[in-house]
Amino acid sequence: MAGCVSPPWKALLLKALETNSHLKHSSFFQLATIGPNGRPSNRTVVFRGFEEGSDKIHINTDTRSNKVEEIKHVPFAEICWYFTDSWEQFRINGKIDYIDSSNKDLAKLQQREKAWFASSPKSRLQYLGPSPGLPVICQETVKETHLEPSAGPVAAFCLLVLDPDQVDYLNLKSNERMAFTFTLSEDGSKIWKFETINP
Amino acid sequence: MAGCVSPPWKALLLKALETNSHLKHSSFFQLATIGPNGRPSNRTVVFRGFEEGSDKIHINTDTRSNKVEEIKHVPFAEICWYFTDSWEQFRINGKIDYIDSSNKDLAKLQQREKAWFASSPKSRLQYLGPSPGLPVICQETVKETHLEPSAGPVAAFCLLVLDPDQVDYLNLKSNERMAFTFTLSEDGSKIWKFETINP
Repeated sequence: MAGCVSPPWKALLLKALETNSHLKHSSFFQLATIGPNGRPSNRTVVFRGFEEGSDKIHINTDTRSNKVEEIKHVPFAEICWYFTDSWEQFRINGKIDYIDSSNKDLAKLQQREKAWFASSPKSRLQYLGPSPGLPVICQETVKETHLEPSAGPVAAFCLLVLDPDQVDYLNLKSNERMAFTFTLSEDGSKIWKFETINP
Repeated sequence: MAGCVSPPWKALLLKALETNSHLKHSSFFQLATIGPNGRPSNRTVVFRGFEEGSDKIHINTDTRSNKVEEIKHVPFAEICWYFTDSWEQFRINGKIDYIDSSNKDLAKLQQREKAWFASSPKSRLQYLGPSPGLPVICQETVKETHLEPSAGPVAAFCLLVLDPDQVDYLNLKSNERMAFTFTLSEDGSKIWKFETINP
């Protein structure tokens, strides 16, 4: 009966992903966090799927990127996901967890490993490159890197998991907008409800 | 000689706008602000152009939308602008000013009026609609609205002006990334410089 508790916004999102799947960028969205100076930060990241049987959203990142520091400081984020063909927007607000190699939770480390092997060999290589955001010291120091396909996640690989607690859906073709929120049931599972709001 | 002080990132941005101009959504970007609960907020908005002879970015909005309240509270924002055809990303961080009908600065009120008349008659009508984000009370209360083409900005119309002080440019085709910052010259004008950083 797990399907019955699937949030209604997730069905809308899966449908939007399908409708827009001919566009490579349909799996890209913008992730906003809060910087160390208290200002907003915003960048494009890639959707890596939902956690199995849940509404949690996976994102891969480099532990050396600014966003990991930011999330350690303020663990909240908002995704803005605009689908350019169907004119639908999802704003997904929630708490974000980071899973790096120092994590003590075995189940989480397994998720991280799974995410590593689900990413392409080419995208794995970028975690062996120089620290993102730091000045390019010298072009010639870039070494040829190689990774065995069977090698597990490298130290710089980090899995981010966003646990949504509020979703704002806007359809610019039908001019409809819905606000999704949840309450917790007695067994601790989320019961999502929604309200139609003015666009 | 005004062209000489134009920031180098602005030339890149204008070029990206031209390269991607065949796509309607190329003028859309994501604007992150900070919500009243201290969490990030993120939504898609429309680029309305640069302020004349400057690098300030214009956005139209409804005074009744959450973002105006958020900006009054924390006047900082980050734009994330991803160009889906040229694979370029601009992250533009800066202070944001709102110009509504209560503004005391005549020059700013003139800018607001100019922005109003630059927007289409159809988009002007939306400012006469019900408050964005509030529950839809009753479909039947939606009235036919009409606005004279010569009528000036209505109360709900607000111009946002983002004054950039940091720009992060990423080109996913060439795998190049640049960080732009500025220092103030003796006469108070911005002198932009940039550094090549790791993607």
